[in-house]
Formats: sequence, structure tokens, C-alpha cells
Amino acid sequence: MPMSAVTVNGTRLWDRLMALSRHGAMPNGGVNRQALSDEEMAARAELVAWGRTAGLQPFSDEAANLFLRLEGTDPALPPVLAGSHIDSQPTGGKFDGALGVLAALEAVQSIKEANITPRFPIEVVAWMNEEGSRFAPGMMGSAVYTGARKLPDVLDIRDLSGRRVGDEINSLLARDNGIPRRALGRPAAAFLEAHIEQGPVLERERKTIGIVTGIQGKRTFRVTIIGRESHAGTTPRAARKDALAAGVAIIGALTQAFLDEEDAIRFTVGRLLVEPNAPSVVPAKVEFSIDLRYPDAAELTRLGDSVEIIAQQNRGPCAVRVRELLHNSPLTFPLKLRKMLTEITAELGYSAMEIASGAGHDAGYLHYFCPAGMIFIPCEGGISHHPAESIQFGHAAACAHVLANALLRLAA
Amino acid sequence: MPMSAVTVNGTRLWDRLMALSRHGAMPNGGVNRQALSDEEMAARAELVAWGRTAGLQPFSDEAANLFLRLEGTDPALPPVLAGSHIDSQPTGGKFDGALGVLAALEAVQSIKEANITPRFPIEVVAWMNEEGSRFAPGMMGSAVYTGARKLPDVLDIRDLSGRRVGDEINSLLARDNGIPRRALGRPAAAFLEAHIEQGPVLERERKTIGIVTGIQGKRTFRVTIIGRESHAGTTPRAARKDALAAGVAIIGALTQAFLDEEDAIRFTVGRLLVEPNAPSVVPAKVEFSIDLRYPDAAELTRLGDSVEIIAQQNRGPCAVRVRELLHNSPLTFPLKLRKMLTEITAELGYSAMEIASGAGHDAGYLHYFCPAGMIFIPCEGGISHHPAESIQFGHAAACAHVLANALLRLAA
Repeated sequence: MPMSAVTVNGTRLWDRLMALSRHGAMPNGGVNRQALSDEEMAARAELVAWGRTAGLQPFSDEAANLFLRLEGTDPALPPVLAGSHIDSQPTGGKFDGALGVLAALEAVQSIKEANITPRFPIEVVAWMNEEGSRFAPGMMGSAVYTGARKLPDVLDIRDLSGRRVGDEINSLLARDNGIPRRALGRPAAAFLEAHIEQGPVLERERKTIGIVTGIQGKRTFRVTIIGRESHAGTTPRAARKDALAAGVAIIGALTQAFLDEEDAIRFTVGRLLVEPNAPSVVPAKVEFSIDLRYPDAAELTRLGDSVEIIAQQNRGPCAVRVRELLHNSPLTFPLKLRKMLTEITAELGYSAMEIASGAGHDAGYLHYFCPAGMIFIPCEGGISHHPAESIQFGHAAACAHVLANALLRLAA
Repeated sequence: MPMSAVTVNGTRLWDRLMALSRHGAMPNGGVNRQALSDEEMAARAELVAWGRTAGLQPFSDEAANLFLRLEGTDPALPPVLAGSHIDSQPTGGKFDGALGVLAALEAVQSIKEANITPRFPIEVVAWMNEEGSRFAPGMMGSAVYTGARKLPDVLDIRDLSGRRVGDEINSLLARDNGIPRRALGRPAAAFLEAHIEQGPVLERERKTIGIVTGIQGKRTFRVTIIGRESHAGTTPRAARKDALAAGVAIIGALTQAFLDEEDAIRFTVGRLLVEPNAPSVVPAKVEFSIDLRYPDAAELTRLGDSVEIIAQQNRGPCAVRVRELLHNSPLTFPLKLRKMLTEITAELGYSAMEIASGAGHDAGYLHYFCPAGMIFIPCEGGISHHPAESIQFGHAAACAHVLANALLRLAA
């Protein structure tokens, strides 16, 4: 370790990871802390309290993104940002998102405790609604912050119970006692995001740190099929408009179309709803999600564009409507930032490798806003979005350690 | 019309059909009055009030089946029963079930108003939970009454919100002020059920009354698929246990297997639930219903037995469990009763034809308990289990008219 390097408190980081995981904790060890839920609001309040204790100034913006600021010697400079998100999937784990926020907090607190005042301000950030499970699509806070989406366009999005993003944000901000409000889209000098890999590569290769090269592209769709309700005992097949039969045919055909030998296409139907959903009624309506990812932009475009065609070809006597919710092209993080992260990791003595991200991250939106980079640490068995999500204490500490020294360099 | 025939009050019947349809009325003209719901309890209270006004004595049993009794000259004789059910599908119509109960009430009230006291008692009956949409399987009250199922076996069945049949029955019976309780399975002399056809045949053939020959066989299953939750962006296809992909493969294979040229197999997946049902999570669990019907017993057995085999062949890397909930063989109603119904219909001057029932009915259970028979009337476009369910005033009146005279004959 070079003499100049800041050290971090791995135990404090771990304790906070465990403390945060109590908000939305499930009996099976998992976490259900969906965006803008009461559980997430409670987690956010605890995060603000930790920030204040560490001497950081909390700020919020209109999208309920949260910032914890360490002042720089030149407060007029744009801050260096580091963080991730604290919302989870409905059956998520303890580390997806939370690691990135708490490792950044640990890094910044350690910088402050080393009595270093960087030239640029540094801000820990927790972006609103990264997961998109309650309010689709995800990465909502970073999309709005960076201008990729307009705030008014997301405020009317509703969850399954009919609650609006806008109302939930207002409710959250109303409870934000004493936290100053800032405008969306303030300039940033850079953004760093630490995250669990959510795949098996680092563990298999026995590396502590993954220097993320980029993020594969992603397109998401919502498919709505309109059939006609009828009696399961009396309606001949020829007279049916069975929305679920059409849904099964469409999903089956898409599965066949996306069956690549190299197993690089990521095609998932994660959500499907049937109406009226009664055993002896032929379904009148089916709605399902498509999540489609691929590392190459042109091929992702070709694959995604075939969704509508395949849906229409297989709809049978029903009507079908395909709406695209998101089209994020694959991206490559700037070489300069990746080189810096590689150097620091090497200086601190951690094993590392380059790795591509299969999952989308807030850094994907920040990439188009300021220089952005990511580091991964291993997660057990590559399991994520699951209560069994698990990481090693040493990997979490290493992650904060790399982050602290990278932030110092960026903010110098 | 023979001089001896009892007449009925078609307007009173129609007014009651409209009045009953207000319990659970939906803005689209449909009815959501599921078994043991508050809406059904309110409808039941109104039915009891009508019965009392008509001079009939209400009784209930432990399964919340409701009886309205016209005393006979020989009260010790088993009653002739006539009725159907007053619960509906979640998106049902005004006539499925309600017609059979209210036509029976109109028939019995007309007999009483004609100052005729039959030798056998006659009872209007509303069976508990015929539809089975809230608590599966359906025809629960008639199954328990006739001993086809045991009461304790159905009390623990729960709806999607976790509420128990047993608790809902207790809650209903607790509100049954002044209605005497009787034992389950008291002997019956005969059972008649009037119902809308729920198919297009009578309307197409321009007949007023269908003399039902029998009911096609029905088997129902619940299929549960256990996969493994994982991240939609990072988990390669080869590493997935996608419960919905397995579900789609199984339903697709069953659809192919049940694709008969004559279009006689009725195969429906009406209900399907996904967990955790989030767009970017590979589904961990899928559960779906199968409703399978066929007129021939041996073929129904063969088709139904293939469900487990096809499910196991197409489960991929997931685990699958198939549970059969119901196996009702096809049945033929007694010729003697059918002949009597044909004679009465002819005497009263209504056009009629023999017709098979595609749907199951409470009469299917009663068939194994006492002589049972059914009559159908046309419904518009054959549409049923749908808010658009519609019948003609004259057909409803004809239905009560045939019923009244058939009941008189049976109770003589």
C-alpha cells in the first residue's frame, strides 16, 4: 500500500450493511425494500443520520435522489459523486445497491477522518428507484437527474395498487425534515459506482475487484393481449379468444427466436398478469414484461425490433399491443477512469480483472452526463435479486478502500 | 296449455332477477358476487325475505346451502328440490345460477298461490359456491350435501387473500337470524335445475327449452412449478431455472396434445400466478390451473392422465408438481325424468330439444344422490361468465312455467 493511501473501517461498513438490511428484512434473510416504500424511507432516514454523524451535509432533489456532501476546498467546483441505490427487488438481498451507497459513505467518512479536505466536493448519492420492480422502468432517479427522462414523465407512473410516483415522492420529501432541496441535474465532475457483480465470474476467477468495462444494452417492453372472456366448459376452441393461450404462443415463439448457441442473449419474461384469472373462465386479458439484453448495439436493435413482429404473428384470434418502455444501448466506460481504477487497485494490492456488466446500473445514465466508472466485487454463486445474496467481509472492505482512494484522486 | 297447468308470474320473476343482480353489480352491467362474499350474503338475505313473503320456511345447513320450503300434505316425505346457486364469477353476468334459483322460487310461489298443497314438500335451494372462482373447486355446497366431499375437507380451503371457507361460512351463519339449521345430506325425492345454456345451440336452433341429456366429464388440476429466482441481466440461459419459461413450455405442449380435429376437448388454463412477478427477475415459481372437459369417460381419463406426463417432459431444469383437484365422470340424467320434462314442455306448448351440457352444474352431484334433471333456456350469443350475459324475458318465464308443472308432477 502506498504511504499516501487512505484506509477504511471495514467493520463499520459491515455493521451498516447489516443495519440497513433490517429495513424491509424478510424471515428468509432477504430484503423487500422497494422504491419509495415505507421501508425505503426508513432506510433513507438512517442513511441521513449516518451522514450527519460523519459530518456530511444531506441534500435532496425533486426526484428524491439523496446526496451526502463532503465540502471541498473549492465549493464552487462540481462534486465528484459516488454511490448507487438503497431500494431492492421485492425478494431481494442485502447487498445489491446498498453496498455501493455504504461503501461510498465509508470512503468519504474515512477521507474526512484522515483530515483530508479534497479540492472538489465529494458527494455520496443514493439514486431513487433503481430496481424498477414497483414502478417500471428502473434507474428512474439517475435518468431524471441526467436528463435522459423528464421528471413530469415519471411522476404519473403507478404501482400495481395504483399509487403514483409523484405522490410517493411528495410524501417522502414532506418527511425530509431539514434536508435542503437542490435542482435536478447539477453538474458533476465524475461518478463512481461500486456494486456486487451479480454473476459468477469474479468468484470463479478468484479476483477481489472487477474493473467494469461497460454495460450491455437493454430494451424492455410491455405486451398487452386482449381476448374475450368465455366459459371454459361450453366454448369450443374455434370460438375462443384466449388471451393466455396467445400469450403462451408469443412467449414460446420469442423463446425460440432468442435461442442463441453462444448463450449471450438475455431474454426474460419476469412479470405476467391474467384477467380475470379464474380457473373456469377463458382469459380475457394478459399483460407481460419483456427484458432483453445484449452486448452489441446493432444486434440488440435487430432482436428488439423482432418482438412486435413475433407477437403479431402468434396472437391467434386475439389483439396484441407491444409498447417499448426502454432502449438503452450498450456502453463502454472511459478508458482513463478504468486505467485509474486499475492502478489504484494494483497499488493497494488487490487482485483485479476487467469485467463487463450484464446488469444495468445508474452509472449507465451518468455515463452520458460525466465521466463514470464502476467496480464490482464477487457475490456468492453469482446469486443476486434473491434472499440468498451473499458477499465476503474482506471484499466489501476492499471495495470501500479502492473507492476512497479513487475519490481522493478524482477530487484532488 | 292443459287445464290443470299452474301459471307463473313472468314479471315478478324478471323483477327479482334484476333486483338480485344489484348485489355485486359492476358498472359494465356484470355481476361480481363470489361465493360467501358480502355481496352474496346480501343477495341471500333478500332471497330469504322473498321466500318468507311467499310463505316458505327458510332452512340452512352447515355448508351454508339455503332451502326455502313449501310444506307438503305429508311432511315426513323427502322434499322435491329445485334450484341452482346465487354466487357468480368475478366478472360474471346476471343469470348464471340466479335464474335457476329465482325460477324455482317463482314456480313454488305460483303453486302456493294456486292454493295447491303438494303431497311431497317442495324446497327451493341455493347451493353454496358453485362457481369455485374464489374458493376452488366449485360446486362445493352440492358436493358436501350429497357426500361426494366431506365438509371438513373444504373448510380449510382459502381464497387468494388467505380467508378460509370455514370462517366465511361461520360468519354467514352467524348472521342467519332465525333461520333453523338442518343436517347435511337429508334425503331428497328429486332435484330439478334450470339454467342458461351458456352455449349457442338453443338460440341457433330457435328453441325455448333444452332438455338436458347429461353433463360432460371434467377434471381439474393445479400445476406448481418451482424454479430459482435470479437476475435477468446477468444469468445465462444455461444457469437459469425459469419457472415461467417452464410453465409456457408445459402449457404449449398441453395445447398441442389436446388439439383435436373435432374440437370436442375443452382445455383451459384460466388462472396463472407468477412469483415474484417483477420484470427483471427470473421467475422462481409459477402456479396455474387446468380445466379439462370431455363427453366420454374413458377418453377424459386418458387425456387427464397425460397432464402429469407432459408436465414432467417439459419442465426443463425446474421441478413440477401436478395435483388433481377434481375428477367428475360424464353423466346421463335418468330417462324417466327427461321424458317427463319433454312431455310437460310439449303440453305447455314450448319448442324444445335435447341438449348436452358443456358446463358442470350442481345437478351433477345431485345425480348420484336422487333422480335429477335439468332444463336450459337460450342465452344471447351463447355468452356466459361475462358481463354481457343476456336472456329473453319470455324464455325466463317459460323456464319457471315448465319448472312449476314439473315440480307439481314430481311432488304429487
